[in-house]
Amino acid sequence: MQAVLLGKAASGHFARLKGKLTTPWRLARFDRPEPADSLAAALAGADAVIATSWGDKMPPAPRLRLLQVPGAGFEHVNFAAVPGQATICNAYGHAEGMAEYVLLAMLQWQHRFAEMHRAFRRGSWKHGAAAFGPLHGEVFGSTVGIVGLGRIGQAVAVRAKAFGMTVIAANRTPIAAPAGVDRLVGLDRLVELAGECDFLVVTLAQAADTTGLIGGEVLAAMKPTGVVINVGRGPVIAEDALYAALHEKRIGGAVIDVWYRYPSASDPAVRPSKHPFHELPNCYMTPHASGWTLGQAERRWSEIAINLDRLATGGALLNVIRPPSAKK
Amino acid sequence: MQAVLLGKAASGHFARLKGKLTTPWRLARFDRPEPADSLAAALAGADAVIATSWGDKMPPAPRLRLLQVPGAGFEHVNFAAVPGQATICNAYGHAEGMAEYVLLAMLQWQHRFAEMHRAFRRGSWKHGAAAFGPLHGEVFGSTVGIVGLGRIGQAVAVRAKAFGMTVIAANRTPIAAPAGVDRLVGLDRLVELAGECDFLVVTLAQAADTTGLIGGEVLAAMKPTGVVINVGRGPVIAEDALYAALHEKRIGGAVIDVWYRYPSASDPAVRPSKHPFHELPNCYMTPHASGWTLGQAERRWSEIAINLDRLATGGALLNVIRPPSAKK
Repeated sequence: MQAVLLGKAASGHFARLKGKLTTPWRLARFDRPEPADSLAAALAGADAVIATSWGDKMPPAPRLRLLQVPGAGFEHVNFAAVPGQATICNAYGHAEGMAEYVLLAMLQWQHRFAEMHRAFRRGSWKHGAAAFGPLHGEVFGSTVGIVGLGRIGQAVAVRAKAFGMTVIAANRTPIAAPAGVDRLVGLDRLVELAGECDFLVVTLAQAADTTGLIGGEVLAAMKPTGVVINVGRGPVIAEDALYAALHEKRIGGAVIDVWYRYPSASDPAVRPSKHPFHELPNCYMTPHASGWTLGQAERRWSEIAINLDRLATGGALLNVIRPPSAKK
Repeated sequence: MQAVLLGKAASGHFARLKGKLTTPWRLARFDRPEPADSLAAALAGADAVIATSWGDKMPPAPRLRLLQVPGAGFEHVNFAAVPGQATICNAYGHAEGMAEYVLLAMLQWQHRFAEMHRAFRRGSWKHGAAAFGPLHGEVFGSTVGIVGLGRIGQAVAVRAKAFGMTVIAANRTPIAAPAGVDRLVGLDRLVELAGECDFLVVTLAQAADTTGLIGGEVLAAMKPTGVVINVGRGPVIAEDALYAALHEKRIGGAVIDVWYRYPSASDPAVRPSKHPFHELPNCYMTPHASGWTLGQAERRWSEIAINLDRLATGGALLNVIRPPSAKK
């Protein structure tokens, strides 16, 4: 059996995957788009491909039975271009680390731990009891609204509840409120939800109906102290409306991990938005790193290894997002 | 009825207390040691005093029925010097904020949120997925040891458990393991406990038998990656042994909020230890600020107002740490 790890998000985990497999696989890796010949040869014999994207111009993969996306999001996979006999699966393992990031962001927002540390290292007692400094905030007793109650949202809910927060959530699909969630509404009531929250946490994937879902109307409904946190996909929050709300200080602030522009070979140091978010005093920003943990990689590649093992032995695949069509 | 708020930790909350009282009290405040005459006059008529300390040289307080400490620690109160007919009470409200600080410290230690933010503001994508940067840590699946399972320790346990951590604890008094605690041992097994922990959280008050309790032997038992967090009282961890373990990188690091030296009128910018903790790369340090939250002040002064109201109306006092002796 032969698998091709395509692109750095897959090939970078070559050794991790190799260490987890229990069935015999030949693994080939391509860090970046290769000369067409070698990639075409590899795909011609591939039983499985692990890749975050699959476009119209991929060489034929006549034996392909599994396209394994090494992540949750599959917005760069053109389903129609993937051979019909192949199953498409995605992978998880990121919910724990991302929920930790969200709680860390809320706690840091209120306590300003990093600022206290820096000032005290320089010698200032100003933030503490001895100097009778200004009292800082807590998350206890505050309200968090979670937009999108998938695995990440549910992991946030359980943790936020343990801190004595009120947890409300909005989800597209009507489901029973899971552990930690005090109240669950539909996505059509986002404006109402936004008005109740001290923190509004966006975990949604990018899709036609989520792009711009958090726009001017939702942001305008937020409290003047409300903080929006985005760990889903950048464009779920309308770029211009978010920048304006922060720049004009109409909301308390934002913690943004997912963006509107990403580095490319031609512009490896691109700023993450056309707007200068990096100049705002009320915005924490990180480079799509909320789930970028060693624990995530271990959990995720364990799932992927299970899928390759099951493909080899005939077991049922995990995390199927498109089953194979009838054989052609 | 007359109450005296003595010292800034009490007098600074004059308005907050006034707003919470439901019985008629005359409140007097003294920010700092006053000319003896005016303080003596106030104490002569005081039914209650709110102060963090009470020494041998206090003027007589013949009517005193309550010494209310506006905090949990009462190491600066000389019980023998407090008139025998007075009840001594302490106050709480800090557990929620302090537990938040502890979780924030553990999360920041693993995720390095503040460093990611600063680098990304400057334009660097190096910490994230787009640059295929180094994976960071998580608290999920790690082990926290809590030394001292009072209100703070229990609040830490519940929160840590929600993050999927294993929670072990050491307590002087044998109690049933409360919510969130997987295993509870006696303080005599600290060395063994320390060896199991990724984070060792110290919440103990200062007393003869806690001073230096975390010494060279306990620190030597910790994992080379282990992190000690102190939100109790500085001297519970032996100063020289802690500095040496950090400086020689025998443990992973420390997050220290409580110290060995505090500012005074004569040295308002004193460094918090005779050792240069502020030069260590593996130590986060804050100025006794873990419980320094608005929520704490609100909860604590609500308790204190209840005690004054009950003293006025004859109800049972909260948080009695020394009942009155038989009337003289």
